[in-house]
Amino acid sequence: MQIVPAIQHLQDEFERLPGIGPKSAQRLVYWVLNHDRASAKELSDAIMQAKDTVHFCKQCFNYAEDDLCPICASPKRDHSIICVVSEPRDIPPIESTGTFNGLYHVLNGVLAPLEGVGPDDLHIKELMARLANGEVKEVILATNPDVEGETTASYLARLIRPLGIKVTRLASGLPVGGDLEFADEVTLGRAIESRREI
Amino acid sequence: MQIVPAIQHLQDEFERLPGIGPKSAQRLVYWVLNHDRASAKELSDAIMQAKDTVHFCKQCFNYAEDDLCPICASPKRDHSIICVVSEPRDIPPIESTGTFNGLYHVLNGVLAPLEGVGPDDLHIKELMARLANGEVKEVILATNPDVEGETTASYLARLIRPLGIKVTRLASGLPVGGDLEFADEVTLGRAIESRREI
Repeated sequence: MQIVPAIQHLQDEFERLPGIGPKSAQRLVYWVLNHDRASAKELSDAIMQAKDTVHFCKQCFNYAEDDLCPICASPKRDHSIICVVSEPRDIPPIESTGTFNGLYHVLNGVLAPLEGVGPDDLHIKELMARLANGEVKEVILATNPDVEGETTASYLARLIRPLGIKVTRLASGLPVGGDLEFADEVTLGRAIESRREI
Repeated sequence: MQIVPAIQHLQDEFERLPGIGPKSAQRLVYWVLNHDRASAKELSDAIMQAKDTVHFCKQCFNYAEDDLCPICASPKRDHSIICVVSEPRDIPPIESTGTFNGLYHVLNGVLAPLEGVGPDDLHIKELMARLANGEVKEVILATNPDVEGETTASYLARLIRPLGIKVTRLASGLPVGGDLEFADEVTLGRAIESRREI
């Protein structure tokens, strides 16, 4: 096919993005070509701006533009409770629930001995340092409810409990609006074990 | 939600793209943040490069980097047959069939009187000028097989036939690999009317 090189190149670039196949990439290329230069420039600049201004928060390792991320820097947040997550991308869904007003700590992964990821590869030392001043009363371990997430949570719980800090884990159970019939047995088992009086 | 401004801005920019919802936009943002600067720069540059170097072919109104698009500029193409399409995006699927070796002409739309699109809004004058030198033997009208596409094709056929040039239309019928049971009645009707001896 005889295609204009700049178009082919842009299509190849879009196809490298996650979830973008050849057809979607083509649609994105036509979007760029059919919109005015200012629109393309804004998209192009936003990419480099994010890349160049975003780094990690010095305290919690969330994404940040300044030394501290907006959450760590906020005087309205409760500094006595820390929610531990594995990746920065786990923070927005928790924030959007509106039920948590504490701080975060990003581990940057989970323990995975088979892939060579040990405690020293995660921001665990930095978490323990944050807990040392006695200000923190509770740590919520919000790693994923899968094997590696559970292992990491257990490991951290064993480290933190001796400090006299309350350690909690997100509840497992049926999703709200879900259907008993279609729940997997492990989830349903957890929901039964963790049943609560009403 | 307290989110880093540069991240929010990039996510908003990605969400403006066609077929990209909030979740996909977030995935694209994380792709940018998790890859090296060179990857982000290549994507960012490819967008502006396409925007700044691509314009329309002076002859056929396909996308081009030079005065002529690669197809019009190629000495290997058959200049005696022109395939008329409504948009540049209709060209790659025809090219990828490998069954057409002529030139193209992009109308830049279809006749849509209700939306105020008349013959003067399309590149019809330029098409007639290309047909005037007597070199062209056949014009294939490859507008979409919908109401506006058919109307536009009929209009063009009436203009071109008096020049003694053969005017053809893409065949309508069952898609290859399709199923009689699931064909709509109009398509099936066309397939019966256009049946051919074997």
